Amino acid sequence: MIDVMGLKRPRQNGVQRRSPRIARRQRRMRTALLTAGARQFASRGVARVSVEDLLAEADVSRATFYAIFSSKYNLLENILNPIFDMAITSISALSQESARAGLTGIFNTYLELWRVHREGLLLITAVDAATFRHFEARHRALNDAMFAVLTVAERANLLRNGSAEYSLKVIARTAIPLLKVYDEHSSGEALFADAMQALLVRSD
Amino acid sequence: MIDVMGLKRPRQNGVQRRSPRIARRQRRMRTALLTAGARQFASRGVARVSVEDLLAEADVSRATFYAIFSSKYNLLENILNPIFDMAITSISALSQESARAGLTGIFNTYLELWRVHREGLLLITAVDAATFRHFEARHRALNDAMFAVLTVAERANLLRNGSAEYSLKVIARTAIPLLKVYDEHSSGEALFADAMQALLVRSD
Repeated sequence: MIDVMGLKRPRQNGVQRRSPRIARRQRRMRTALLTAGARQFASRGVARVSVEDLLAEADVSRATFYAIFSSKYNLLENILNPIFDMAITSISALSQESARAGLTGIFNTYLELWRVHREGLLLITAVDAATFRHFEARHRALNDAMFAVLTVAERANLLRNGSAEYSLKVIARTAIPLLKVYDEHSSGEALFADAMQALLVRSD
Repeated sequence: MIDVMGLKRPRQNGVQRRSPRIARRQRRMRTALLTAGARQFASRGVARVSVEDLLAEADVSRATFYAIFSSKYNLLENILNPIFDMAITSISALSQESARAGLTGIFNTYLELWRVHREGLLLITAVDAATFRHFEARHRALNDAMFAVLTVAERANLLRNGSAEYSLKVIARTAIPLLKVYDEHSSGEALFADAMQALLVRSD
């Protein structure tokens, strides 16, 4: 802890005094670390990646790392929290929509997240249970927002399986796998939306 | 190697002389080890499970283990190979069927495997890439059999996404997750079949 505190001191000075050039450099380092983290955490699992591994890929010093993040879990939070926040904002706004527009909105949110945060989305499915506890509150908020939209659809008798609860489980288990399947297809986005529609929405 | 050979000797004597009671006991031990293996491999990953862990759960001696299996990988093969063989036999038989019956047959094969070999099926999705190489030939045979059925459906213009290749990917990524989702639902089997049908088969 003393070491970490020690490393924080130059950062506070740096924030007060830093030039635009230094600020740009730190933003670039931060992005390099977020990119390396998303890639390595997703491919090898959070537990097996060390801070050293991240420094090597991002070509960043240990001091710079700890000037930006307090730990590899803090780095992970900085990757995943913006994704959860974007999803929660987008899906919460759908509760004002009609049942059908709400469902389409959920599928479009997944497509938008895939466009903007693909590595992070793949990472969410690879995170182990212990690490996942760091994200429990946001994950619950996201599930609550989706459940509200699905409940409107359940009441409108739109759900193929008749149940908001089970439709939520279907989305949680199949949306990212289907984004992966259609990833390299030239009509991938349309095929994903069609598959989710078919899977969840009553056809008659 | 010498140790393993040494352990095999009593087995060969045992096979020649063993009484029905000993044969029954060995079958019971074998089943206990297969059950422990499927459960532990699926929940913790093949790499993290030792032979000792399996002996502890199955309450079997080291000598008995090596009289039945040559290694934990050999135990794994004895869990997974019967599942692959059952799937390959069942799906190969579908190539004689109509396009529509072939697709329904694939979904029914998954349901049948889930009824008979649930732990093993969950295990397949948890196996790491290195271990998976032990099953490459059978996995390819299974994919080829499914692809043949899906190609008949593609030619009959039955596939929702129009492609046997992509339909195979959709099945590979979503069938077991959907079996899990509907596992505890009282109409689970019907809901699974309906979901696969909706996801893969053109509705008009």
